[in-house]
Amino acid sequence: MSMTMTQKILAAHAGLDSVSAGQLIEAKLDVVMANDITGPMALPIVKQMTDKVFDKDKVVFVPDHFTPNKDIKSAENSKAIREFAKQQELTNYFEQGKSGVEHAILPESGIVVAGQCIIGADSHTCTYGALGAFSTGVGTTDIATGMATGELWFKVPSAIKFVLTGKPGPFVSGKDIIIHIIGMIGVDGALYKSMEFVGDGIANLSMEDRFTMANMAIEAGAKNGIFMVDDKTLTYLKEHTTKEYAVYEADADAEYDEVIEVDLAKVRPTVAFPHLPGNAKTIDEIEAMEPIKIDQVVIGSCTNGRMEDMRKAAAILKGHTVHPDVRVMVIPATQKIYKQCVQEGLVEIFIDAGCAFNTPSCGPCMGGHMGVMAAGEKCVSTTNRNFVGRMGHVDSLIYLASPEVAAASAIAGYIANPEKAGDR
Amino acid sequence: MSMTMTQKILAAHAGLDSVSAGQLIEAKLDVVMANDITGPMALPIVKQMTDKVFDKDKVVFVPDHFTPNKDIKSAENSKAIREFAKQQELTNYFEQGKSGVEHAILPESGIVVAGQCIIGADSHTCTYGALGAFSTGVGTTDIATGMATGELWFKVPSAIKFVLTGKPGPFVSGKDIIIHIIGMIGVDGALYKSMEFVGDGIANLSMEDRFTMANMAIEAGAKNGIFMVDDKTLTYLKEHTTKEYAVYEADADAEYDEVIEVDLAKVRPTVAFPHLPGNAKTIDEIEAMEPIKIDQVVIGSCTNGRMEDMRKAAAILKGHTVHPDVRVMVIPATQKIYKQCVQEGLVEIFIDAGCAFNTPSCGPCMGGHMGVMAAGEKCVSTTNRNFVGRMGHVDSLIYLASPEVAAASAIAGYIANPEKAGDR
Repeated sequence: MSMTMTQKILAAHAGLDSVSAGQLIEAKLDVVMANDITGPMALPIVKQMTDKVFDKDKVVFVPDHFTPNKDIKSAENSKAIREFAKQQELTNYFEQGKSGVEHAILPESGIVVAGQCIIGADSHTCTYGALGAFSTGVGTTDIATGMATGELWFKVPSAIKFVLTGKPGPFVSGKDIIIHIIGMIGVDGALYKSMEFVGDGIANLSMEDRFTMANMAIEAGAKNGIFMVDDKTLTYLKEHTTKEYAVYEADADAEYDEVIEVDLAKVRPTVAFPHLPGNAKTIDEIEAMEPIKIDQVVIGSCTNGRMEDMRKAAAILKGHTVHPDVRVMVIPATQKIYKQCVQEGLVEIFIDAGCAFNTPSCGPCMGGHMGVMAAGEKCVSTTNRNFVGRMGHVDSLIYLASPEVAAASAIAGYIANPEKAGDR
Repeated sequence: MSMTMTQKILAAHAGLDSVSAGQLIEAKLDVVMANDITGPMALPIVKQMTDKVFDKDKVVFVPDHFTPNKDIKSAENSKAIREFAKQQELTNYFEQGKSGVEHAILPESGIVVAGQCIIGADSHTCTYGALGAFSTGVGTTDIATGMATGELWFKVPSAIKFVLTGKPGPFVSGKDIIIHIIGMIGVDGALYKSMEFVGDGIANLSMEDRFTMANMAIEAGAKNGIFMVDDKTLTYLKEHTTKEYAVYEADADAEYDEVIEVDLAKVRPTVAFPHLPGNAKTIDEIEAMEPIKIDQVVIGSCTNGRMEDMRKAAAILKGHTVHPDVRVMVIPATQKIYKQCVQEGLVEIFIDAGCAFNTPSCGPCMGGHMGVMAAGEKCVSTTNRNFVGRMGHVDSLIYLASPEVAAASAIAGYIANPEKAGDR
């Protein structure tokens, strides 16, 4: 029976020749990850089930949400997973100061590779689909089961095929494309489905673009997002890992619920307005409105805190200063990216512009710390979710955008077009 | 009548020829400062008293304690002072990303100079005494009165004279000296008194050493700490300000409650053990004990977050890595220091060693954020106060130390002697 990319990976991990949409399977897990919010909740369940996790190389903890610890509670949570990781002699416990944000550090460290079956107790675990892996977010009981047994049940998802063609314009990146797509299909447009990205347009997307897009598959309700593997993927894997990987392609006659073509050349810089990631407006529509004045800009997160994001934001900010009414948080996603930003002179550009350059952390994305908002405040953010109150007060507003839109807006003081940032 | 340094400044600001200890006076204020904790509490009182602060150049707000904002409450507090500063058209409102920690940014920006009478709604406002100013911390009602009227009543303090002689050893800095002194006189040893630092040993102290020492005068209960002005002070003022300043010297026959001589050459690296800054132990005493294993190191704050502190910590950490059981927060006190750390290659040293390098903030010093401790954890910190629960859980322990002791301890995993850090 013909299968999608996702179905092939799941079949291989279930030890089955084929699977079909809707089927319940038990799959072997290659990576089981939790963070400082979800990990501590899972531990009591793990301990009920076993004395020893199923594989000390495959269970991963990343304290990144409330680290460096913002309060006593978060310190206790970090301590719980730190001690568990030590007691279990886990290979991959990522301490603050030596790591970064989970969905950036796992690919960077070569822990996640093509062809794997990965679960994480974080909804944006779908990020690793950029590498051609099946990767999805799960809840506390499931992650605990995964840690204890190395297996988990799944309902095999059906899929939507996105055929990407063409080349995006100079100020359009993965963030614009994925917001454009979620805008088309809606925040439940891919509910419990795979979003499978194929087509010759993919060659025009950097790995950073792909991570950003796969990261936000969950914002369309998808079970997972996954990119076909190409030369860029293979080069990335060669640079980051010595692990074995496997490349799965969908069968030519695989069944898809829908096939959607996206001409990347036609995607404009696109912003998701409050309070849904699917509330997409192009920069042209925004420019036709009254200027939307902002109070804060956040550049970072598992969605857009990678090296290319830092470079793109810095290129816009260079020689400019942040608008006096705006505060800007720049948060590189890992220590390696941080160091690279130092070496390339980007940190100086950010500081000269008047940005706070923070240590790697999820920070303000989910209203954690490092830039939480007060009532009535508006933020342009490169993060992934703009639900009511996500980054602070219920009366604050979040506009999701690319690093370039964010940087241009930081200078202007309102949501601005990066294509015109040079004019100021 | 003969007067101390402090008394001369107070007399000049009260418009009196002379004052004496115990006298109640009304003095004119040159700088009135509040932060994001104390400012919002003062505002309703200010508003009761006036529509307009007494001088828009002399009222200063620095949101530095819970910034970048750690939660909704702190965001609301920052917003309150931001809006007030804007409405009052204050010259000196220091936004995050463009400033730093109050007691570092005010000298750096040339707002505080020799001879001034300064109040701040923060106990470590005594820091500016390093420049030969009278500077003290006050409560909410007093700071509000100062903002509204430009004047405040003081009871003129008596004083202890500290005559510093000799030259400190290579791994001894202001922090060791002030902990040594507080260890001698106790945490109430200078209660409501001036600590006046004079003597030819002062020439051997950098401005950073002096800021650190004046900063911790309050930890001996002092009303203020103040250094005689010398060539280094004048050079510092020339580099940082265009404001007029005045140099006050104590009269030769000024009365002091006590005169204490400190031979700087005899001061050893000194650590304040829990739970008092006066609980001083030399590094030699510590080396004779069982090793004190630590969980965290903090290098930064208004006490030790200046350029020299960063350089000294980096010199120890260079080429080493942080002990696997230790997490390290390095927090430069201002954006200017941050940038200088980038330019001098220090940030790379810290990152290579495995430290989190944070954006300027008071951070974990008062248990705010960026490294709050869990139960049972021990921290070597370059901050100023090690009271029970100050940096987190009531069952956490704080050891106050210099940047060099802190850096050596980060590598060793226990409180360590920086003199031997090269041995490892």
